[in-house]
Amino acid sequence: MVDYNVLGGKCNRGLSVIDSYKILKGVDVLSKEETFLACTLGWCIEWLQAYFLVLDDIMDNSQTRRGQPCWFRVPQVGLIAVNDGIILRNHISRILQRHFKGKPYYVDLIDLFNEVEFKTASGQLLDLITTHEGEKDLSKYNLTVHRRIVQYKTAYYSFYLPVACALLLSGENLDNFGDVKNILVDMGTYFQVQDDYLDCFGDPEFIGKIGTDIEDNKCSWLVVQALEHADESQKSILFENYGKSDPESVAKVKDLYRELNLEVLFHEYERESYNKLIADIEAQPNKAVQTVLKSFLHKIYKRDK
Amino acid sequence: MVDYNVLGGKCNRGLSVIDSYKILKGVDVLSKEETFLACTLGWCIEWLQAYFLVLDDIMDNSQTRRGQPCWFRVPQVGLIAVNDGIILRNHISRILQRHFKGKPYYVDLIDLFNEVEFKTASGQLLDLITTHEGEKDLSKYNLTVHRRIVQYKTAYYSFYLPVACALLLSGENLDNFGDVKNILVDMGTYFQVQDDYLDCFGDPEFIGKIGTDIEDNKCSWLVVQALEHADESQKSILFENYGKSDPESVAKVKDLYRELNLEVLFHEYERESYNKLIADIEAQPNKAVQTVLKSFLHKIYKRDK
Repeated sequence: MVDYNVLGGKCNRGLSVIDSYKILKGVDVLSKEETFLACTLGWCIEWLQAYFLVLDDIMDNSQTRRGQPCWFRVPQVGLIAVNDGIILRNHISRILQRHFKGKPYYVDLIDLFNEVEFKTASGQLLDLITTHEGEKDLSKYNLTVHRRIVQYKTAYYSFYLPVACALLLSGENLDNFGDVKNILVDMGTYFQVQDDYLDCFGDPEFIGKIGTDIEDNKCSWLVVQALEHADESQKSILFENYGKSDPESVAKVKDLYRELNLEVLFHEYERESYNKLIADIEAQPNKAVQTVLKSFLHKIYKRDK
Repeated sequence: MVDYNVLGGKCNRGLSVIDSYKILKGVDVLSKEETFLACTLGWCIEWLQAYFLVLDDIMDNSQTRRGQPCWFRVPQVGLIAVNDGIILRNHISRILQRHFKGKPYYVDLIDLFNEVEFKTASGQLLDLITTHEGEKDLSKYNLTVHRRIVQYKTAYYSFYLPVACALLLSGENLDNFGDVKNILVDMGTYFQVQDDYLDCFGDPEFIGKIGTDIEDNKCSWLVVQALEHADESQKSILFENYGKSDPESVAKVKDLYRELNLEVLFHEYERESYNKLIADIEAQPNKAVQTVLKSFLHKIYKRDK
C-alpha cells in the first residue's frame, strides 16, 4: 500500500526540503545526520501528498493516478482505501515522533503538519462544494473563489510546507516568517494557474497527460477569466458547453478561449506575477531566504510542463 | 456537519474524562478552569469517535447511525463525507492547540491522540481485511484474531484514552501507567464481548437496536466460540448459514449457539473476566487509580444494554 501510493511521483515537494535546507545553511553538502533529518521531513511531505491523493481520488471518482489505477480501484481494496489514507497520515506522526521527539522544534513540526493538513482539507472542501455540489452552476465561479480554493488546496502544502520544514530544521521560529509564507502561497497560486493553462494549451505529449478540466467542469483559471471577459452571447456558449464530455462541446469552449485571447491574458498574468514575486522576495531582509524563494520561483517560471 | 455527527451519542467516553479526573484529584467539584479543560478533552474524544464513525459507515456501507441516516447517505453529502471526517479529525488538533498549548503536557496529549488514532485505524484495517476481504471465510476467525481486532479497534480509544486524558490533566507521566493501560484494554475487550453477546441474546426493545452480526458475517465472540466448540457436522451448519440474511439461516445459527450452550459459556467468561480484572486492579499501588478503574468496571459488569 505504501509503495503503491507514496512512490511514483516526481518528489518535488520532498526534495525541496533538502535543497532549501542547504541554501539556508549556506552549504553544498549536509552532514549525514542533517541529510537524514531533511530527507525524513521530505518523505513526510510525500506521505502527506499520498494521503491526500488516495482520498481525493475516491471523492473525485478518478480512474488513474501516476499512470496506474487509483488505489481504491485496485481489486480487493475498494473503500478500504479510506482507512489506508488514514494510516498513511498516522505514519507521519509516527515518523516525526521517532526521529524528532526531543528536538526543540518537535512541537512546532507537529503543529505545522496539523495546520497545513487542515488548510488542505479546507481547500478540498471548498473545491468539492463549489465544483461538485448540486447542479453544475458556472455562475458560482469567479477569481476570488478560484484563488481561495487554490491557496488552501494546493499552495500551503506544496510550497509553504517544504520551506517551513527547512526553516524549522535550521532552528528558526516560523512566527518570524509570515511574509515568507505569503510569498510562497502566492507562488503556489501562480503555479496552479500555470497548471490550469497547460491543461488546455499545453502539449499533451510533453506534459504526459491529456487535460480534462473542461469536461470535468473544473473551476479553472481559464473558465473564470472567460466568464470575466465574455459578453452575453459568449457567456451562453460557455454555460451550454462547459462541463460536457463530447468533443464538440469541448472544442466550442476552446474556440471561445482563443477568441477571448486567454493565451495573451495568461502571459500577461505570468509576467505580472513574476515581477510582483521578485519584488516581494527582494524586500526580504534575509539573503539566504531570498535565495530559497528565488530558486523556487525559477523552477516554475515559464514552465511548459 | 459537526452537529449531525458529533452529537446524538451517549457521550460515555467524553464524560469518563471528567469522572476520572474528579476521582484522581479526590474532589467532588472541580474548579471552573479544571471543568473546562476536562470537558474540552472529553469533547475531543467525542470528535474522534465522530470521525471514526463517519468513515467506518462509508467503508461498511451502513444505513443508519444513532437513529438517523449515516452522514454519507445524506443527499448532497455523499463521498464529501470522507473529507468531512478528516476535518473532524483536524479540529481535535486545533482544539488541543487552542486550549493546551503551553501546558507542560501539551506534547503528551498530541502524542496520545496520535497513538490512539493509529491503533484504532490499525484495528479497523484488521477488521476490514478479516471480515470483508475476498470471499466469506469463517476459517479465518478465531479467538486471537477476535481479541486483536477488538483491542485495537475499540478498547484503546473507548477505555484507555479517557483515563489517559485524566491522568495527563492530573500531571501524571503516562510512562508510569503501563499496567493501567493493559487493564483498560482488557476491560474494553470484555465490553466488546458483552456487545457481541447482546447483539444475539439481548432484548432488542431494551438495547434499542436489532442485532445483525450473524447476517453481516461479523467476527463476533459468539461465532468464534461456536467454531471452537463445534463438531464437524455443527461446523458445516455454521459455514452454510453464517453471513446470510434470510431468517431461516439466522435461526439455524442461533439454534446452534443455544445447542453449544454459548449463553452459559458467556456467563462463565463474564465472571472470570471480572475476577481477573478486580485482581489486577487491586494490585495497583495507587488507590485513586484503583477507584477510577473499579468505577469503569462497575459501569459495565453484567450490563444488559
